Parts: sequence; C-alpha cells; structure tokens
Amino acid sequence: MKSRAAVAWESGKPLSLEEVEVAPPKKGEVLVRIVATGVCHTDAYTLSGSDPEGHFPIILGHEGGGVVEEVGEGVTSVKPGDHVIPLYTAECGECKFCKSGKTNLCSSVRETQGQGVMPDGTSRFKCNGKELFHYMGTSTFSEYTVVAEVSLAKVSKEAPLDKICLLGCGITTGIGAVFNTAKVEEGSTVAVFGLGAIGLAVIQGARMANASRIIAIDINPSKFEFAKQLGATECVNPKDYDDPIQQVIIELTDGGVDYSFECIGNVNIMRSALECCHKGWGESTIIGVAGAGETIETRPFQLVTGRVWRGSAFGGVKGRTQLPGYVKRYMDGEINLDDFVTHDLPFEKINEAFDLLHEGKAIRSVLHF
Amino acid sequence: MKSRAAVAWESGKPLSLEEVEVAPPKKGEVLVRIVATGVCHTDAYTLSGSDPEGHFPIILGHEGGGVVEEVGEGVTSVKPGDHVIPLYTAECGECKFCKSGKTNLCSSVRETQGQGVMPDGTSRFKCNGKELFHYMGTSTFSEYTVVAEVSLAKVSKEAPLDKICLLGCGITTGIGAVFNTAKVEEGSTVAVFGLGAIGLAVIQGARMANASRIIAIDINPSKFEFAKQLGATECVNPKDYDDPIQQVIIELTDGGVDYSFECIGNVNIMRSALECCHKGWGESTIIGVAGAGETIETRPFQLVTGRVWRGSAFGGVKGRTQLPGYVKRYMDGEINLDDFVTHDLPFEKINEAFDLLHEGKAIRSVLHF
Repeated sequence: MKSRAAVAWESGKPLSLEEVEVAPPKKGEVLVRIVATGVCHTDAYTLSGSDPEGHFPIILGHEGGGVVEEVGEGVTSVKPGDHVIPLYTAECGECKFCKSGKTNLCSSVRETQGQGVMPDGTSRFKCNGKELFHYMGTSTFSEYTVVAEVSLAKVSKEAPLDKICLLGCGITTGIGAVFNTAKVEEGSTVAVFGLGAIGLAVIQGARMANASRIIAIDINPSKFEFAKQLGATECVNPKDYDDPIQQVIIELTDGGVDYSFECIGNVNIMRSALECCHKGWGESTIIGVAGAGETIETRPFQLVTGRVWRGSAFGGVKGRTQLPGYVKRYMDGEINLDDFVTHDLPFEKINEAFDLLHEGKAIRSVLHF
Repeated sequence: MKSRAAVAWESGKPLSLEEVEVAPPKKGEVLVRIVATGVCHTDAYTLSGSDPEGHFPIILGHEGGGVVEEVGEGVTSVKPGDHVIPLYTAECGECKFCKSGKTNLCSSVRETQGQGVMPDGTSRFKCNGKELFHYMGTSTFSEYTVVAEVSLAKVSKEAPLDKICLLGCGITTGIGAVFNTAKVEEGSTVAVFGLGAIGLAVIQGARMANASRIIAIDINPSKFEFAKQLGATECVNPKDYDDPIQQVIIELTDGGVDYSFECIGNVNIMRSALECCHKGWGESTIIGVAGAGETIETRPFQLVTGRVWRGSAFGGVKGRTQLPGYVKRYMDGEINLDDFVTHDLPFEKINEAFDLLHEGKAIRSVLHF
C-alpha cells in the first residue's frame, strides 16, 4: 500500500516528504496506522550521521501512537482496531533477558532492529524502487508502518494517541529510570542534569516518588519554570558558578545527593552527575546517549567510597507489560503528558519540528497525520 | 611506655626496628597490645610513597589482633584483657553514615585518621624524640598501639589472634564485598580478577553464597591451585589468550558473568571487569586500590545497557557490629583463614614479609610479637 512518509535519504539533510510503498505484514508482524508521533533528540542524533546504527535511506521516528490496521500470520496479541504504542525495546517474554526478571532489554529482535530491517532480514518500505531501512523497529515517521508483534504495547482506546505517543520514549524513560533503575525512595534528594523531555520526566517521577529535594540543572534557564511546575524544588544554572557543578551540588546538599540522573548525553556531565552523589550511598543513573566512541571517566575512589554508577534504557520499562499501566496513570491524572506537548503540527511540517528541537524551543512537538 | 615497633622513616626504604615511646590512651582511646599482625599490599603501597595519605615517619600496619591493655577516660565498650581487632573503618553508630543504614563508611575519625593522628590531632608515638604518624587509625606494626574506642571490634577470647588478625582487612574485605556490596545470589556466575588474599577471599565468599561458576583470573598460574581449593570452578590466565580478557570471559559464559570483582588496583582491569559482565544485569565491584590520580574509563553504553559499576571498602562490613560474627564463622569452620597464612614469622623479620609479598610468594605472612 501507499503511505505518506518522511524519508531521510542521507545524513545531515532535511527529511523528504514522500509517498512510499509499504509491504503487507509477514508472520509475526503488524501493520500500524500511525496517528501521531513525537520528535525526539534520538531521531535528530541519527539524522546527524553520528549514530553508528544509522543506515540510510531510512524512515526515522520512534515515539508514536497508532491503530492496528492488519496483522500477519500467527499474530494473536493484537487485532485490527486496537490502539498501540510501538516499542523500540521489544518484550517477547521468552528470551534469556525477558526471563531473567532483571532487565527490560529483550533480545528477540535486537539484532535485525539494529540493522534497520525486520526480523526476517528484509525491509517493508520502498520509495521510487529503492528499499528504505526501518528505524528502531518502529519508523513512526510513516503513516503506515510495519512493526513486530513483540514490539507493540496494546493500550486503552480511551487515551488520546496524540498525547500517549510520548509514552513511547521520553516520558516513560524518565519516570521509569526513577522507579525501575534508581528506585528513588521517599525523602531522597535528587539532582537532574538536563531539562529536555527526559530530564523533565525524571523530575516528574521524582515528585511521584516523594523525593524531598529535586534539583534541576540546566544552562538554559528558560527551562526552569516548567521544571518547577513539575516538582523541582530548586533550579541551578552551572554558568552562575565558578566551581565545578558537582562541587556546587555537594555544597548545596551537605555532602551530595542520594540520586542523580544524566539526561543530556554529555560524558563530562556524566562524571559530574556521579561525583555530586553522596559518599557511601549516592547512585547516578546515565540516561543520555553519548556520541559514538566517547567514554566516561572518574577516579575509582568515587566508587570505592560507595557511589554507584548505573544506566537506564527506556527507563527499565517492559513495554508490553507495563506501558498500559503508564497510560492508565496518565488517564487518572497521575502522569502529566499534556504540558510536555509544546507544539502540535501537521505531519508535513516535520522539518520545522526538528528546527524547534535544535533551537531548544520545543519540549515535544507532536506531528499529526 | 616502651614498645617494639617497625618505623617507616621515609618512603621506599626498608622498615627500621626501633624501641618507640607510646603515650597513654587519652579520652575515648584504648592502648592495645598487638599479638599478631598481617602484612597487606596497602602497607606496601603506602611505604612505596604512592599513597597521598602517607605521612612519614610513620608506623604502618592495619591487620592486627591484640589484647586491651589500658583504656582512656570514658571508654565503656572494652576493658583490659578483652581481645580486639583494630579497625581502619571505625563504627561510631552516631554519625550520618552509621545512621544511614546504607554504608559502613563511618565519618567519626575519618579526617584525623587520614592525617595520621589521633582524633585530638596529636600522635601517641615518639622515637628518638621525634613524633611518628599513626597509620589507618591502627598502626599494628607496634607491639603497643593506641586506637580510638570506635575503631576496635571486641571478639571472642577463644579465637586465635594470629589467625583472626586477617579479619582486620583482606579476608573480611573479600567476603564482605560478595555479601554486602554485590549481594551475590545462589546460582550466580562470578569472575574474580586478581588472586591475592582479597581475590581469594572473594572466591571463598562466592562459594559460601553458592555461586554456580566462579572464574578465577590471574597472570600468575601458581595461584590457581589454592583458588580451586577455595571454590573456583575454573581458572583463566589472560596470557593464554590473544583476545582481551573481557572477551574471553564473555565467550566462556555465553554473554558475561552476573558479578565480577577487581581485586588488583589496576584501572585497565577495572574496565575489563565491568565489560565482562552480562548485558542487562551484570554488576562489577571494584575492591583494588588504584594509584593516586588514576582514572577508570568505559563507554557509557556499557552502563545504559544494564551493567552496574560499584566499589567496596572493607567489604561494606561494619566492624564493631559484624566482625564478631565473622570470627564466629571462622571458629565454626565456615570461613577458612588458616590456609591464607602461608608464612609465620617473628616480628623482627618484618622486612622479609614485605619481600615475600612483593615476590608473590606469600598470600599472607603473619608476624608474631
């Protein structure tokens, strides 16, 4: 079938609006009509050419909400008409990882997903006779996309897809990192580095966890108002201080915070985030994605004296099992998504959405098909 | 009073046997007659001059067992005749750290201990009219030493001091790191880098925790026999492989181990130890002490994909509360100390003990006063 899509023909160039051909879903696959999709920094990162897993030409997009249009052979967990959120972190329930009970990093489709193809090794997208790569197993920048059954969370039909699409990445990542990875306890002190959608979602999560202090850190003070609205108890701009930011936070908190989160992807800030943690028990969680080949560094003394260094992917959330619950918490008013959507745009304005992201003006732009 | 002691007048030189003067214990302090002391790599590290906290002239030694000789004003928890193990990690029970329930890193005497003096800022040791520094709050290379009350674990009089002195550092550090820091579960796979006393104690701890595979790693294969005796299920010499050791372990274990321990103090091996952990849940614990200013490094992707980087000091063990239990487990035959003592020497042969350590011939030499 035909579909409107934004194709990234090569890195570093604007996306090109095209009519692409979408092949029918094969065994274990599902055709989804995307209703709305967010635009995330990870899309921009891959488009920039820095992502070693970025294969061009490709259809980007991984923060979508849609409706099942058609199912392939053997698909039993969803049927046409179901509302779904595509998952870049699948959940098969059967691999070593899913069965471990210790991680959400399902391995079922990981290898082919990284290669930009469906589990059988081929693509469902073509444009002008040329095959296009899939992206993160989701490719939500196409009105019709094919996704593996294990990569779909079935969610309530009551929930607005143009809001809950944000649960496909950023918001879930931030809130999940607080609850599943760091396991922030009531009364804890928390420092959040970077106030993009993920950092802001961490703040929201820390408030839900009843943290006693939530310190929001960014060099862009225009982010501070919303951070406070979501629960930040204080905001710090590193540019206002001569001392390294870890020193500033240690002094503010009489020894350091209980939990810190790096939500930028800057390896130097990752070190700051670790070192601003309290001796004896402070734990730092890396969420941001660093550039290819970049490394983090610290003195081992930081760990030997009790700090812990962790990371989180998709907030440790198992998509098919747990995402329906996140949707319910949004519907119950516990999770704020609406205020994260700073811009609603028609799909055709997708390049404008990327511009807004780069300019730091949008928290999230949601594109409507 | 007079005491036999080994004085380190300056770094890099052999110790000098001297008769030193020991002042009486002040308020909150205890005079201890050391009966036996182990010689640990940390003593050798400080003697080498690489330790930024090493102040000369100094009386080294931190792995001792002794008898209380006299108590200072206000001391209530021990009395003359009690058997004690001096602690380089105090436990006051009242500081922020002790009260947190999350760490053993008591802060009560930390600052003065690091400066080589007693909590009131002065020394109890003199030799030829010159003040000597204390070491790690213990200075067990003196027959009589003064220790803060909070730095003494009272232990059973039934236990032989020339064996349980090893619980003052290495053995407790290794076993404690398994149970308190990593919290190794039954059936886990474990990799141990470095088969000195601490690494061997980690192996012993992993066996006590019923780990399913315990991989012992060292470039000195003469350590393998004892490692197997203590519970190692296989031994690996990195020199036998062309691939990096993390790759070797990942292949041996179908993806990596559940827990790894670095027991050397080599920052490159710390990276290997992290990276040989299983994606999704593997946790690496740094125990070894790196050189001053050295840093550890890895790609943040290692953490974002679920590995955890930790460290451990004195095995996370709270000395006064928990060490008596370790002594009991030794007496009950659950903890092997006897086989760690490869050399028993009179105190006067202390420099020979350092030679044996440097040559890799001794696991532990125990010096008898």
